[in-house]
Amino acid sequence: MKSIIRVKTQSQNYEVIIDVLKHINFDTEVLLVTTQSVANIFLDNILTYIEANKVETCILPDGEEQKTLQTIEKILNKAFEVKLNRNSMMIALGGGVITDMVGFASGIYQRGIGFVSIPTTLLAMVDASVGGKCGVNNAYGKNLIGLFHQPKAVYIDLRFLETLPKREFNAGFAEIIKILACFDYSLLQDFHANQIETYIKRSIELKALIVQEDEQEKNGKRALLNYGHTFAHVIELEGRFSKYLHGEAVSMGIIMANTLSQKLGILSEEIALCIENLLKQCGLPTKYKIENIESFYQAFFLDKKSLDSKLHFVLLESTSIIQAKVHNTIPKETLFEVLYEFSK
Amino acid sequence: MKSIIRVKTQSQNYEVIIDVLKHINFDTEVLLVTTQSVANIFLDNILTYIEANKVETCILPDGEEQKTLQTIEKILNKAFEVKLNRNSMMIALGGGVITDMVGFASGIYQRGIGFVSIPTTLLAMVDASVGGKCGVNNAYGKNLIGLFHQPKAVYIDLRFLETLPKREFNAGFAEIIKILACFDYSLLQDFHANQIETYIKRSIELKALIVQEDEQEKNGKRALLNYGHTFAHVIELEGRFSKYLHGEAVSMGIIMANTLSQKLGILSEEIALCIENLLKQCGLPTKYKIENIESFYQAFFLDKKSLDSKLHFVLLESTSIIQAKVHNTIPKETLFEVLYEFSK
Repeated sequence: MKSIIRVKTQSQNYEVIIDVLKHINFDTEVLLVTTQSVANIFLDNILTYIEANKVETCILPDGEEQKTLQTIEKILNKAFEVKLNRNSMMIALGGGVITDMVGFASGIYQRGIGFVSIPTTLLAMVDASVGGKCGVNNAYGKNLIGLFHQPKAVYIDLRFLETLPKREFNAGFAEIIKILACFDYSLLQDFHANQIETYIKRSIELKALIVQEDEQEKNGKRALLNYGHTFAHVIELEGRFSKYLHGEAVSMGIIMANTLSQKLGILSEEIALCIENLLKQCGLPTKYKIENIESFYQAFFLDKKSLDSKLHFVLLESTSIIQAKVHNTIPKETLFEVLYEFSK
Repeated sequence: MKSIIRVKTQSQNYEVIIDVLKHINFDTEVLLVTTQSVANIFLDNILTYIEANKVETCILPDGEEQKTLQTIEKILNKAFEVKLNRNSMMIALGGGVITDMVGFASGIYQRGIGFVSIPTTLLAMVDASVGGKCGVNNAYGKNLIGLFHQPKAVYIDLRFLETLPKREFNAGFAEIIKILACFDYSLLQDFHANQIETYIKRSIELKALIVQEDEQEKNGKRALLNYGHTFAHVIELEGRFSKYLHGEAVSMGIIMANTLSQKLGILSEEIALCIENLLKQCGLPTKYKIENIESFYQAFFLDKKSLDSKLHFVLLESTSIIQAKVHNTIPKETLFEVLYEFSK
């Protein structure tokens, strides 16, 4: 059933359209950017849906390790080669790596042109494609280079999920569980993985609300979306961005964040267990083994949230109602106790 | 004498302070970015003016050919190495190449941190450092990759001009003559190169007004600042960004634009001659020899202004009052007549 979620931000208003993909019309030239694996399955079909003055394609290798400034330059060079102008648009067809990179590349092509997203993974549908955070990784960490650039529209067609590898599908659930745990816990209490459309829609609605209130992560509201992520980013860095999918790292990161919450006495065992079971039920990893506590700890400081050298953790609390809050005064000792538990 | 020009844009309000440089205070970490030649003369002195939690420096090689995405990555890597956080600032100390690159690098470091400019060349003082256009060149042309990112403040100390090489000093006059010709022609009628402070101040005031009205070059107002630039960008590209200084290319570009205006019968010979003489008087080149008309013409289409494959020229008109207007329907034949004149 067709749903439209409207996202209103200072820089751009746009719609997230959940529907079977039909014609998308552009009155300009477009450059469709995708990866080899997505192109193999979908490209011919997608191209029949797109009407534009000219449609060019840029096909990139797969993998989070491709999410670099060098790949951005590849996309830009292709855009110059096919002579995109300031009215032209880019289309991101793929997972979060592609939507993040196309948002970034289009944001700096001739000081910024528009882009639309067609996410093909569950994770990109519920998280990456909405909200305008764009960027790439580098040797220092994840998403450390980039900008805010909202799409002109996001098209979500659930049929893409039918051919999504099981591992990638599961990874998407980590972001769904993340956002529901923080903002609509009741939905998790009666969780059925087959009600996927409901969870996708609700996740996007919640994200849209948060992005509207705090587009550029300035008032603390949007920072709450980083529940589990302070740990996850270090896990991804240690795995050189190739060992774990982002969602898998988030799953393990949520468990670590909950362990910290419990250490602080702000989260009940019952809720921590419930979330852990849901992650397991979705086929997600929940155990990460820290090899070197000190280097894991040092890597926290590379996170964008570590303002003024203070570490920021978004932690779930269940003291009265269940909610997420930012914590930036966690004692190093407490943190090391948690890290120690994951090093055994 | 101290002057303050206030620039108000949608994204940022800031001051351009024309004064002898004194203390600049930051309550954060800062990374000062400059070039080797500027560092040799000024760095030690400048560092005594800056008060901050920590001051790090990044010294780059000189030259427009350094204005690439690779250099941006160098600046970013330095910023990560010294652990700048989201509250940190960058300082651009140098000419337009540096202010453009630091604006860009700070705009994508952790999705954007602040920067201040201390321009050391006349061109950067009157043009590059105000207005928030940031970016780098690539094989396809000039400033084709970048974004709009306004500085937090611009500090202009005329003492930098005392040690500026004559050629660079002259190049700055091209932008002064450009903006005065378009928006305050009367000032040019009684031009005395020694009244430099007056011209700097007036150029910045005019630019601030234009940027306020059209920060992101959307309503046509800001596009007028490109008088002479459609030609100049091709000249720079043909000289591989190293043969001519930007201001020198602008000088020759203004002459070409005026030749086109005269072909169209919209500019009097008197005014065209007056501008030519002023450029010569400032020691600027006014003759460019086109080797291959067809390839010069094709290079126009790489310009960011060539929307919908239409070429955009900002031309001076002297029909009633003297003013600049954007022209996007110049017949190819007329254009070729002009290019032919510069190929002899």
